[in-house]
Amino acid sequence: MEKVKPRTLSGFMELLPARQTQMERMMETLRRTYSLYGFTPLDTPVIESAEVLLAKGGGETEKQIYRFTKGDSDLALRFDLTVPLAKYIAQNYGQLAFPFRRYQIGKVYRGERAQRGRFREFYQADIDIIGDGELDIINEAEIPSIIYKTFTTLGLKRFVIRVNNRKLLNGLFAVLGLSDKSMDVMHIIDKLEKIGREKVLACLKDDLAVDEAVGTLLLDVLESEEPIEALQQFVGKDELFDKGLEELTTVVKHLGGFGVPEENFRIDLTIARGLDYYTGTVYETTMIDHPEIGSVCSGGRYDNLAEYYTDKKLPGVGISIGLTRLFFVLEDQGYLNDELVSAPTDALILPMTDDLSPSIALATFLREKGIRAQLHCEKKKFKAKMNYANKLKIPYVIFIGEDEIANSKASVKDMTSGQQQLLGYDEAAEMIIAGVAAQNNGTVILDK
Amino acid sequence: MEKVKPRTLSGFMELLPARQTQMERMMETLRRTYSLYGFTPLDTPVIESAEVLLAKGGGETEKQIYRFTKGDSDLALRFDLTVPLAKYIAQNYGQLAFPFRRYQIGKVYRGERAQRGRFREFYQADIDIIGDGELDIINEAEIPSIIYKTFTTLGLKRFVIRVNNRKLLNGLFAVLGLSDKSMDVMHIIDKLEKIGREKVLACLKDDLAVDEAVGTLLLDVLESEEPIEALQQFVGKDELFDKGLEELTTVVKHLGGFGVPEENFRIDLTIARGLDYYTGTVYETTMIDHPEIGSVCSGGRYDNLAEYYTDKKLPGVGISIGLTRLFFVLEDQGYLNDELVSAPTDALILPMTDDLSPSIALATFLREKGIRAQLHCEKKKFKAKMNYANKLKIPYVIFIGEDEIANSKASVKDMTSGQQQLLGYDEAAEMIIAGVAAQNNGTVILDK
Repeated sequence: MEKVKPRTLSGFMELLPARQTQMERMMETLRRTYSLYGFTPLDTPVIESAEVLLAKGGGETEKQIYRFTKGDSDLALRFDLTVPLAKYIAQNYGQLAFPFRRYQIGKVYRGERAQRGRFREFYQADIDIIGDGELDIINEAEIPSIIYKTFTTLGLKRFVIRVNNRKLLNGLFAVLGLSDKSMDVMHIIDKLEKIGREKVLACLKDDLAVDEAVGTLLLDVLESEEPIEALQQFVGKDELFDKGLEELTTVVKHLGGFGVPEENFRIDLTIARGLDYYTGTVYETTMIDHPEIGSVCSGGRYDNLAEYYTDKKLPGVGISIGLTRLFFVLEDQGYLNDELVSAPTDALILPMTDDLSPSIALATFLREKGIRAQLHCEKKKFKAKMNYANKLKIPYVIFIGEDEIANSKASVKDMTSGQQQLLGYDEAAEMIIAGVAAQNNGTVILDK
Repeated sequence: MEKVKPRTLSGFMELLPARQTQMERMMETLRRTYSLYGFTPLDTPVIESAEVLLAKGGGETEKQIYRFTKGDSDLALRFDLTVPLAKYIAQNYGQLAFPFRRYQIGKVYRGERAQRGRFREFYQADIDIIGDGELDIINEAEIPSIIYKTFTTLGLKRFVIRVNNRKLLNGLFAVLGLSDKSMDVMHIIDKLEKIGREKVLACLKDDLAVDEAVGTLLLDVLESEEPIEALQQFVGKDELFDKGLEELTTVVKHLGGFGVPEENFRIDLTIARGLDYYTGTVYETTMIDHPEIGSVCSGGRYDNLAEYYTDKKLPGVGISIGLTRLFFVLEDQGYLNDELVSAPTDALILPMTDDLSPSIALATFLREKGIRAQLHCEKKKFKAKMNYANKLKIPYVIFIGEDEIANSKASVKDMTSGQQQLLGYDEAAEMIIAGVAAQNNGTVILDK
């Protein structure tokens, strides 16, 4: 028979079993952490009507959309989880209670140019809090706590949650007479880390005709070690600025109460995250040792989630983790903890007699105890079966031969220590449970 | 602004939060149960190259495929999880260990005619055991145990795992001289429950010219209460038959050892599950009180998983649960347990003072204890906040007023009993943990 070459499309992550096990651990951690903050799980279709999905229209994204027809239907694959959320809330408004907190971990699709570490199908892990008409600032203050809890539960230590406020930023531009060129100014400011203060000042002056004194003042504030204090000089000059400063102050004030240590948080007045969508607090999260990766968790406050679907004003705040890319980076940089059990089973049972019944009974017994157990009854040599256990890094191998059967015992080999013991079934179960728990007593990310 | 009507495509399941919570519970149960049997989680792309996905070509399925181009690529959405598994194994053969046990819970796509209870996007939950060259019969014997464990863990009680063997069936047809019309005979046999024995006999005689005595003998065997005994008369007449009977006997023999009670198992010689693909044991699972639903978990043994991609002989056995359809049916028939906590949070904290710090500290404290906690700080009336808790069926509401703050206590209201208590933080956490655990001490399916 003519064979088709089996291949996976480029830009689509498909992991080997041990790696997939780590990915599952990460997803489970996200689900658990998000749940602690009162977020409910949602699941929306991958395919939506193109008209609904592209209601906002235009933009860079549209070119990347997977769009096609089936019968008479003009369809598209979701390219984020925010538009489907907007649709969901507009559609089910009457049946939901607000503030509505949901998390969704799901695949989204963008036909970007294929490139190492860029994916066309990737998981996003999103949380959003949506208010009906209004949403209190305390929700914005709570977000850093969720980011902190999420990453520390995963095992990451050296990261910083950077926060800014769009009202404050726009207000500051107004005070400095830069409102009409705010987008261009931010574009140049964005290069601060790359090209340095002097070149940024030159660009502001030469390219945008920003007065040198204004440019210097702006940079002094944006780069200040004590940004809240540096901003005090502008208080009372612009309403939006004052409101933004008040919001930022509230966010900072509650950090301790929400359990976020100072070293994992920073006010960064240079963060803008696009100029249209966000209207209040904005967030970025960077790995201290890998700034080149950019933000691994971003988001912010917006005023109108579903304006393309409904007249209802639905303000919200949300953050998103690009999970597939994060996983790729963590693997690439050696952050994944390979000490945790990645085998598909905790105990591999090798029957050494023709009668399989005692081995089967033991497997059933162990499973009742919550132990992942697998029988290996293939017609293979003993050595091949041990190689199987080694290749999969199975923690325990159990031999059931005539002696074991006669004494209702099991020979349990700890594959890490190489030690083998003859144990009663209950003892065996206890040892395996304790051993596996000890090996799994770590986080999926190992950060120094 | 012109609004687009928010809508979800027909044939795409999108659940409200409380229902989604139940769906998540089901998926979590499946993941846990499959893991107990040594299956490793896999995740493959939703989109594959059409050439790869349709390597097998032709058939009823192809018309239903979502197929489209993006740039130069001819793409298709997966329509099951078996073809992607075949691709995965052929592609990663050298890096896997066999027998390879994997589970996958994922969405698949079929553009079927829209109809109540039929879905175009639906979850399948599959497990497969793949051997390299050979696969022992004990794997086929283990499958009923996995089905039993899965459904009983979900809470289903009144179901029957029906088992047949394709070798036995084909051997029986050979013995009876029916090999050349086996497909047509099975087609008529399939109607046994609907049209009854007499009409089936008439059809066999009139439509297929099956000798009346042969037809009667066939039906006597297929309908026998003691099928293994009824089959003994044919032993020694056909090699395939003998092999099939031996396999079926082995499967039955180990049921007890694998923990499957007799009342949840039945040999059903009328089950064929298509005539080409399966080559050994086949499985169907039916709900005793809802036979009209058909099989909720089916599968069988096959000899060549990946013949379109590789010369390697990869026999396997697998089963699949159509999870979306199962969920729909369970909801439709009132099987879902609405007593379990479906709220997004266990405890809603209502700050009664302007200073939110004590409430925030309490939320952080409860979350550290693993309690799902949410602050409600919106500028709403007290009654609106209580309505919010009631609408979401939140188990506990906590009030933090001046008295509570002064005494470092919390007023905790049990929303089920209506009882309110002033408690220390530790006491409050203990009570909530115990109360939520008690409420969740049940299965997601309620079967009488």
